[in-house]
Amino acid sequence: MSLTGSYDDANIFAKMLRGEIPAVKVYEDEAVLAVMDLYPQSPGHTLVIPKEKARNLLELSDEMAGKAIARVKRIAQAVVEALDPDGVVVTQFNGAPAGQSIFHIHFHIIPRWEGRAMGQHGGGGQARTAELEELAEKIRAALD
Amino acid sequence: MSLTGSYDDANIFAKMLRGEIPAVKVYEDEAVLAVMDLYPQSPGHTLVIPKEKARNLLELSDEMAGKAIARVKRIAQAVVEALDPDGVVVTQFNGAPAGQSIFHIHFHIIPRWEGRAMGQHGGGGQARTAELEELAEKIRAALD
Repeated sequence: MSLTGSYDDANIFAKMLRGEIPAVKVYEDEAVLAVMDLYPQSPGHTLVIPKEKARNLLELSDEMAGKAIARVKRIAQAVVEALDPDGVVVTQFNGAPAGQSIFHIHFHIIPRWEGRAMGQHGGGGQARTAELEELAEKIRAALD
Repeated sequence: MSLTGSYDDANIFAKMLRGEIPAVKVYEDEAVLAVMDLYPQSPGHTLVIPKEKARNLLELSDEMAGKAIARVKRIAQAVVEALDPDGVVVTQFNGAPAGQSIFHIHFHIIPRWEGRAMGQHGGGGQARTAELEELAEKIRAALD
């Protein structure tokens, strides 16, 4: 899917925001839902999903972009406190050729450790829910 | 350099913001300076540098983060209008193990084209200034 087109209400994150499919939640407020990525590129890979019907950053309102980046920052801080990585990648893909696979705007927070390569998205397969729950619990505790 | 430490006023982006070293400018206002990346991962690779002494997103004020992401969005829209890529990666590295090499907060805007791999940062060497100026001129025109 390219950068042009219309928002599809049946995308996975839209379903997640409506509570129609399960998610391992890290944080939620009126602006965003943050969940563990099911195909983590490193342990603690978290997604921040703005609650606005936009396929990508180009379509997102400035107001929501501002709220979202503040949540990304706060959750990245919590990931650092909880998991003690040596670095954190924040990334956001617009359009399939840029790596986007779900066409609802989202930010990736990917902790990095010295000397440990970042996995390919989905390269390690789907993570075990119990492992994701354990990581989410640590991040949620750091957010409190 | 890890996630902890202090801001070094001698970093390249600090010098650029002070006008001590040249830059191929795309946009500037009270909040950010946007310039062409000298080691582009694809043609049109642009950097958005917030005007705040913060090493990374974790240290940036929420207010500046909001202003910065609005500029990132606007400039990404201009890159799309100017260069017609099939996608755009927006990314932001925190700490050397995450890929950060200059320790002043910045966002990368990297256009992507179908079937063309993204280069390694610096893998193609330093870009020719004339080429960067030509790309910057197109993006500036789209911003107007």
